[in-house]
Formats: sequence, C-alpha cells, structure tokens
Amino acid sequence: MLKNKLKIAIAGIGTVGSGLLDLLKKYKDQNIEVSAIASRKHTKLKGKYFKNTTFFKDAKYLLDFNDYDVLVELIGGDSGIAKLIVIDALNKKKNVVTANKALVSRYWNDFQKLTTINNCKIKFEAAVAGGIPIIKVIDEFLLSNKIKRIYGILNGTSNYILSEMLSSNKEFNKILSDAKKLGYAESDPTFDIDGTDASHKLSILSSIAFGCDVQKIKNEGIQNINLLDLKIADTLGYKIKLLGLTEFDNNNLKCFVYPCLLSKDSFIAKIDGVYNGIVVESDFCKKSCFVGEGAGAYPTATSVLSDIIDLSQRNLDNSRKKNLSKYKIVNLDDRLGCYYLRFSTDDKSGVISGIANEFKKFNISMKSMLQKDTGKVNSAEATIVITTHTCLEKNMMKALSKINNLSFIRQKTVYLRIENFK
Amino acid sequence: MLKNKLKIAIAGIGTVGSGLLDLLKKYKDQNIEVSAIASRKHTKLKGKYFKNTTFFKDAKYLLDFNDYDVLVELIGGDSGIAKLIVIDALNKKKNVVTANKALVSRYWNDFQKLTTINNCKIKFEAAVAGGIPIIKVIDEFLLSNKIKRIYGILNGTSNYILSEMLSSNKEFNKILSDAKKLGYAESDPTFDIDGTDASHKLSILSSIAFGCDVQKIKNEGIQNINLLDLKIADTLGYKIKLLGLTEFDNNNLKCFVYPCLLSKDSFIAKIDGVYNGIVVESDFCKKSCFVGEGAGAYPTATSVLSDIIDLSQRNLDNSRKKNLSKYKIVNLDDRLGCYYLRFSTDDKSGVISGIANEFKKFNISMKSMLQKDTGKVNSAEATIVITTHTCLEKNMMKALSKINNLSFIRQKTVYLRIENFK
Repeated sequence: MLKNKLKIAIAGIGTVGSGLLDLLKKYKDQNIEVSAIASRKHTKLKGKYFKNTTFFKDAKYLLDFNDYDVLVELIGGDSGIAKLIVIDALNKKKNVVTANKALVSRYWNDFQKLTTINNCKIKFEAAVAGGIPIIKVIDEFLLSNKIKRIYGILNGTSNYILSEMLSSNKEFNKILSDAKKLGYAESDPTFDIDGTDASHKLSILSSIAFGCDVQKIKNEGIQNINLLDLKIADTLGYKIKLLGLTEFDNNNLKCFVYPCLLSKDSFIAKIDGVYNGIVVESDFCKKSCFVGEGAGAYPTATSVLSDIIDLSQRNLDNSRKKNLSKYKIVNLDDRLGCYYLRFSTDDKSGVISGIANEFKKFNISMKSMLQKDTGKVNSAEATIVITTHTCLEKNMMKALSKINNLSFIRQKTVYLRIENFK
Repeated sequence: MLKNKLKIAIAGIGTVGSGLLDLLKKYKDQNIEVSAIASRKHTKLKGKYFKNTTFFKDAKYLLDFNDYDVLVELIGGDSGIAKLIVIDALNKKKNVVTANKALVSRYWNDFQKLTTINNCKIKFEAAVAGGIPIIKVIDEFLLSNKIKRIYGILNGTSNYILSEMLSSNKEFNKILSDAKKLGYAESDPTFDIDGTDASHKLSILSSIAFGCDVQKIKNEGIQNINLLDLKIADTLGYKIKLLGLTEFDNNNLKCFVYPCLLSKDSFIAKIDGVYNGIVVESDFCKKSCFVGEGAGAYPTATSVLSDIIDLSQRNLDNSRKKNLSKYKIVNLDDRLGCYYLRFSTDDKSGVISGIANEFKKFNISMKSMLQKDTGKVNSAEATIVITTHTCLEKNMMKALSKINNLSFIRQKTVYLRIENFK
C-alpha cells in the first residue's frame, strides 16, 4: 500500500485510452487515481474513478497542470502536443508512460538525457507489440544476458494481410480492403503496410538491447507482395513474412525491416493472423520466443497499465493471491472432451458393432474411424482407431472397461484425450 | 546504485548453481556480493567475486549465518536441509530466491504466511520453465488482467522424447536411453516422465494465477506412449504432447497433467524438442504464448539472477543502455544471404543460360530452379523461380539490374530475401 495514491494524468482518449479506462475500472484493487484527463472528444466521465479528475479539452492545458505523478501520453505522433507534454513532464521530474512508438524511437537520446538529468523515468511497454511484455523481458528478465539478435513479426496488420492472402487465395488490395472493414487495418494503413511502424518498434528494441539509437532504419513493406509469390514460396516450404531484425556483433549493427521467405519450420513462420511474434537470442538463454496480439485497445492498455503499476512500486506480492478463499477442484471424471482410442481386436466381423453398442450405452458418439494395417501377414489381428465427439470422461472410462472385457479385444485399449486449443 | 551491495548466500552448487556463478562472473555491472556459498562438492572458488565469500561444506551452517540479504536455495527437494534453510531465512526476515519447484509447490501456503508475517519475499521464477519469465508475466505484466486459463508444455525432457520418437521413428525406451546420453534426461528421469515435475510447476502457476494452492494434481505421464499412436495421431492431423492445464471458471478449478492429442495448428503443438511453451489466456490480453528452453543450467540461472536483481531494486534504467558508444550500421548492400527470384520471360530457349551468365559474373549460384505454368494457353510467357545460395546483396542487385535489361525479360524481376532462422 502506498501512503498516497499514484496520480496519473491521461492525455488522449482514443482507442488505447478508452481501453485503459475500461481496464482501470475493472481492475479495482489498486492505488491509482486519475487526476486529469485531456481529450477533445470526451465530456466528463462519471464514476468513482473520476471523482477527483480534472478534465481538459486540450492536452496543452497539461503544460500548466502539476497535480500528477505520471503522465500517460496516448495521443500519438512524433511532433506537436504529444512531444511537448512529454518533454514538459520530464522537465517537471514526472514519470511518463507512453504507447507512442514514433515519438520514443525519434527522441530516444533526448528522453534518456532528460530522465537522467531529472531522475525520472519514461516507460513504453505499449510502444512495441502491445500484448507482449518484450521491454520487461529485455530490461529485467534478460538483464544479465548479452543479447545477440532480436527478430520477428512486429506488425499485426501486415501479418494478417499476408496470412489471409494465402489462406483465402486473394490479392493484396482485396484483403487490405476487407481488413479495413474488419478493423484489422486502419483507414490509412500506410505505416503498417510500408514497414514504417515495424521500423519504429525495431528502433526501440535496438536502443534497449544494444544501446544503439538508430534513426533511419532501412525498411521495405508488403505493398508489392503478390499472391503468386506466396503460393510459390508455400510449395517450396516457406512462408513470406514482414520481418524486423536487429543484430549486434563485433560493433556492427544490422537493423532491417523487409518481407522475406522463412522456412515453415521456423518459430516465427508459424505465427499467422494478427499476432506478433518476437524471438530474442541471448548468450545464456539461447532462444526465447514471445507471441501475442500485437495491437488492439486492450492488449496495448494492459501494457500501459503494467508500466503504471511498475511505477507505483507497490508491493506486488499481495496483489493477485488473496482473491480466492473457496473453490471446487474439478475431478478428471467430470472432464468433457473428445478422445482418441486405439483398439487391438480380432480381425472378424461384429467388432465395430460390439464397440458401437457399448458407446451407445454411455452416450458416446464416434467422429472418425480408421482401420490400420497391422503390418503382419495373416495376423487375424486388427487395429481400429476411433476418435469421438465430446463426452464425459467417466462415461468413457465405463465404456472402455466394458469394451476391454469383450471377447474380441486382444489388448487393453489405448486412450488419449484430445484438446481443442487454437 | 545501492548504497550497500546486495549480499547473497548461495546454497547448492550443482548444475544451476554452477550456471549462476558463471553468469555472475560474466555479468559484471552489478551490485551483488556473494557473502556465502554452501556446497559439499566445491572447494574455495577464487576471483574477485569470492573475495568476501565465506565457504561452508554443508548448508546447515547457514542456519547460524546471518550476513546476507538474500538466500539463493539451489539444493532442491521438498524436505531436508533445503526446506530448513528456506524457512530459517524467512524467519530471519531475509528474502529467498529458489529454483525448487517441489518445495515451493508443497509449502506454498506456509511460505505465503511467513513472508506476510516477516515482510519479506520468496521468488521462484526459476521453478517454472527456466528460460521463460512466466512468473514475471503473470505477477507483473498481466496483473491487471483476470487470467482464465494457463496451459502448455512444462517439461522439456518429455517434450524432447515425444518429438524424437516421431522424428526418428523409434520407441520410447530407445529415445529415453539416447536422451540420457545426450544430457536431455537425468539419470533418474522418473519425475520428468511421469508428469510429477510438470504437476509441481502447474501447482505454482495455479497458486499465482488463481490463488488456488493445489497439492495433489492428477497427473499422467508419457511412459506408456507408443510410437504407433504418435504416427496415427500425425496422420489424423494431431501431435501428442504432455499437457499441463489449469483453468479457473466460476469457482471451479481444473488442474490436470496428461498426454493428449493437439491439433497441429495449435500454438503449443508447434513446440518441439527440449522447448517449453506456455499459453496464458486472460480477459484483456486474450492469448499470449511464451516459448523457451525449459531446462538447462543457463536459462534457469538467468531466471535466478533476474529474481536477485529484482530484489536489489536497483534502478534498472541505467543498466544496459550505456554499454555502447561507437558502432557501425551495416548497410543492406552488405547483407550476405539467400534470395528468391521470380522471372517473367519469353518462353524460348536461351533464357536460363542468359540468367545464369549474369549470375556467374556476380558470384551468384543457384540452389533450385522451377518453371511455373503461367496458366495462360499459348502465352509465350514463362515464369521461372530461382532460389540462390548465399551471396552479397549488392551483387544480387547488380545482377538483377543487368538481367532486367535483357531482351527476354517481360516484367521487372521479383526478388525476396530468404532468412534461415530455425
């Protein structure tokens, strides 16, 4: 428990800002107070979270406002008022949390100087791959490791487009216009498509991993990728992905964003749709891979709030643990799910119907059936593989117990559960 | 900078302990002092990290030793001296860092009470999936989110065995004995194979995510998995994995460890070999996936050191960033790598030799060549796809520039880089 609440001033209530407010309202066990909100769109917000909140119609009024500990900058853009209020806050020795990749990548060095001089912090987990705590991983978990390279898929929109082009057999422009309708691409998706967005994120990763503040990263986008090339790459065993790569070796820094072919077996080739995926290679941990939804209001807001909580330096140990007092442990008997079954039986008629009869008694229905060649000549033994629809584990166990006692069963039936994770 | 160094007492110099010492020696920029080492095996270690170190032949002597801030318990086991020194340290109001999953899962409630009473901490990032910061993710990054379920591959040894059985077409016992020789399985691998190790980790995950301290998790292992079932599952579109699952819904807790079939398209089915992979599903971040080497001295030691550094509460902002002053940015022209090329040409003889001649001038060699059907009848147009061996980007650009001017080229040649990540 802090003696005083951590006061935050939020600038910008767009997609991420609205998500943050939702999250703050739901995440109740906290010591955070919203002391100011600056937003052109919103009128006064009601509820206990806003009872001490000052509302401004323009973020410029925050320049004359001082009753906060942390500025949460969610306006965006690498110039204008976003830049002004961040620099103003740091000069006031306030901490800053921002999701603004363009700003952080462009003014990295300035912000480092300001935070050092003023003994304050700027945190930007939300600026790189919203739902993936990659900054925390590099700055905290891997702090003792020397990072060799970081690469991955840093833009969800372009990954979605490339994945969809191949899976739905359509060209770039058609998928892009669908993506806009579905909300997977912004109305002006230029920076997502041409690699600019990925290069901002890569610039930040290079800065934190290697101390290399790269302003101009060579970037190529996916605007010229043809469906034909996706298909040919597929037949050759590759996927085409928009890759961001930063690698530091022997004082040489490689830092590129371009679409490329990746073996289907590689970690990041397997990441499709709106997901981002980042691989970090380091001297002691070798290879770590992180996957999450790279964009969207809520994953990004989660990153913003994680930074705010870190700055509150609250004792984290008492946070989640005391939520629960009573709960019921579900018995495996009560599992509802599908099953894989392998029967070793006599090779004669009546076997399938014998099994099916027992299934019927216990409300089990077959999804697929397959008879395997045992590989033995004249063996008179049959191997039958059955997968089932969802049923209750205890019914399955009862049915198997009955089936295993049938005369045509040669060995105890092998069963494995099937889990339907995506 | 801490005013005083953080003093750590390390108990147990086995695989992880040795890894931690290596890491401490390499990770120089720190404020950590090893004030004591208790180990039966090691005689005195030399070097500046140990100049203030007291050496004990038995960890029991730590019970009478107080000159430390953090006990680092790397002995293992859920009873005996490991338990004694951890409880002793917490009673002395010292912090504890441990990699001991059996101990933490068994005495979760006791440790929570002790740390609350004594206002100290026990940290155990290394106890669950060594190279993956899953505790940090749940306790810090996702603190504002309600976790719905956590599932994944929590044991590297069993994942290696299942992966190898299928890929090398051998039965369980053969692969297990190979794995022991290769160091991927311990001499007594019982707990890895039968699901006990995974159930300890799952118990800890249930505790931190849901506040449910589950002592007895129903676990089944992989000791009875047949190669035949792996193969049949493969033909049906599944992989067999040893799954750990904990899910909390409406005050019902599911908590299971068993081998099961997973669709090849699912995130965790794609994780093969010694890797661990964990999926966390939460209300705001939806699905996040973390992959890393689950075992091994160095990933585990990285987790231990990450906990130690967190306890030192040092200002993390000045850690990695000032490492570098001068570096050279590698130009994309200097990229060494493979290329995918698609040529649109006249459909006539001499085309391949024309391309090959230019390749030769610029030291480019072909790896594969494939002529695509253009799909147009009598089109007199040919599509040729070539992949190359490694060459220099600037040579490729020069060659393509020449080739694009050849008379038989109909459209500007499409090129994409090929990256060889695993």
